[in-house]
Amino acid sequence: MSDQCVAGVDIGGTKIALAVAAPDGRILEGTRFPTRVEDGPRAILGRVFSEIERMRERAGARLAAVGVGCGGPLDRARGLILSPPNLPGWDEFPIVALLEERFGVKALLDNDANAAALGEHRHGAGRGLKHLVYITISTGIGGGVIVSNKLVHGVQDGAGEVGHMTVLPDGPACGCGGRGCLEALCSGTAIARRARERLAAGEESFLSSLDYGEITAQSVALAAREGDALASKVWYDTIRHLSVGVGNIFHALAPEAVIIGGGVSTAGEQLFAPLREQVRARVRMLAPDRINILQASLGGDSGVQGAVILGQVALEGTAGV
Amino acid sequence: MSDQCVAGVDIGGTKIALAVAAPDGRILEGTRFPTRVEDGPRAILGRVFSEIERMRERAGARLAAVGVGCGGPLDRARGLILSPPNLPGWDEFPIVALLEERFGVKALLDNDANAAALGEHRHGAGRGLKHLVYITISTGIGGGVIVSNKLVHGVQDGAGEVGHMTVLPDGPACGCGGRGCLEALCSGTAIARRARERLAAGEESFLSSLDYGEITAQSVALAAREGDALASKVWYDTIRHLSVGVGNIFHALAPEAVIIGGGVSTAGEQLFAPLREQVRARVRMLAPDRINILQASLGGDSGVQGAVILGQVALEGTAGV
Repeated sequence: MSDQCVAGVDIGGTKIALAVAAPDGRILEGTRFPTRVEDGPRAILGRVFSEIERMRERAGARLAAVGVGCGGPLDRARGLILSPPNLPGWDEFPIVALLEERFGVKALLDNDANAAALGEHRHGAGRGLKHLVYITISTGIGGGVIVSNKLVHGVQDGAGEVGHMTVLPDGPACGCGGRGCLEALCSGTAIARRARERLAAGEESFLSSLDYGEITAQSVALAAREGDALASKVWYDTIRHLSVGVGNIFHALAPEAVIIGGGVSTAGEQLFAPLREQVRARVRMLAPDRINILQASLGGDSGVQGAVILGQVALEGTAGV
Repeated sequence: MSDQCVAGVDIGGTKIALAVAAPDGRILEGTRFPTRVEDGPRAILGRVFSEIERMRERAGARLAAVGVGCGGPLDRARGLILSPPNLPGWDEFPIVALLEERFGVKALLDNDANAAALGEHRHGAGRGLKHLVYITISTGIGGGVIVSNKLVHGVQDGAGEVGHMTVLPDGPACGCGGRGCLEALCSGTAIARRARERLAAGEESFLSSLDYGEITAQSVALAAREGDALASKVWYDTIRHLSVGVGNIFHALAPEAVIIGGGVSTAGEQLFAPLREQVRARVRMLAPDRINILQASLGGDSGVQGAVILGQVALEGTAGV
């Protein structure tokens, strides 16, 4: 039985994952529940409080700190969640203050991709590395940059916004207001959109038998594996655009690895094998075997494991994360 | 009179700059001489030895360490210069061992863009910043990344190779073997080449009265200032391509500043004003006033000032630079 424990909370638009860990990071208890956004932030936070309390009791430990990962925009310094698109109603929501008040311990907030980067760095595909870039590709694209074992936040916590790197000048419009961003071409949403555009233009495909809503990055990947020409072209283009973004990360930072997680990464070698080949062709300044592009290994747990690490940081008062 | 001094050597293809400084970095003596590459590395290093010795004597101090900046490729760990294109005959040249043997002190080698980044960080446009990216735009494009006041080297010392970020997929061939690299579009060489290509295609321009060799980035900038349509288009395209690369750096790292040096940067506000505007339009995740793009302020001295800092690092044994 531990004397102390830290809690980690990963707040997403569809689910909330929680864990309680020993101060050394060993997970003691974990749970998750669906985010019923219609209940609003106060009610959802009430459920978070009770789940933490329940896990803490089961672990037989005193809560010493809480870490929270959540989609941005955030005000990390003030501990506020600022109206993320996937959490309607969470406007200037003071999650850190509310957690600190409820439990009488320190809490620390960071964005979900940074938390996942910490999780993969400490426990996942990045174990033992000091210098990595994590990219999550799901409905959107986010990232986290770790240099010398520390997250790089940058001005306005803007580092790691790899989803908005321009990979195709004058390419399609992005939600950020820019054009040709990585996210506008390679997110799950963008992959599905590009397939739909080709179908709408009359191209033949297995996918034309599906309903509009069934055309997803996953169905495109599946159809491409089965040799469908339209899906194969969309998949190939995805990897080509992604290779520009990942290649630029290697040119700027030469990380020991780029680790890719999120739903689209579950395509596995269908994504990673051609991506490695294209990035290696693009990045001539590094030996091909030093260009490591790895699939995230914690799956949906990278975020909550990273949130636990944020809790450890809150406990230890470590600077720089 | 100082008891100790450190020397800095900036080895370029056209000139070698040297300085001797107090251990706190204050420059005591400085000099420069043309690189007569035809003399070969041993003879040139002999001149470096005698200039350091002469400066040290004038400073009345005992030499305690030497820092060296030089164009890559290098083997930094082993202190070797590995056949840089601008220094024919410098093949696996053991400059660190030779300096250490001659002076009986520690020497430290890094690439010239990293040295210049250190110089601008400590003494130039980056004074007081912790987190910056330096880009030099001259015949080629190089860079250096500083995070938490330390150079990021990355695997195979490959960080900061911003000149090979892809800014125009399927763009012109680059010397690195890739296509559409920043260097292939925005270096001084590339600016001149793009102007010549337009002239060869029969476009009218003030520049058509110049000899082939007189068409340089500088003459293009001058003609653009005078309203020449061809030169204005080439200059505009340069800034557009550069804004992709600089924008991607802000998205990846959100540095406190991107500092641009090298010959092309001497165009000043003709370069910086439209570049800031375009990068701010591209990078929506940061407030426009947090996107700082600064002209390097040490001119041709950033390299030698950075080499002195490398000497200080050699003296202090500071890790991480």
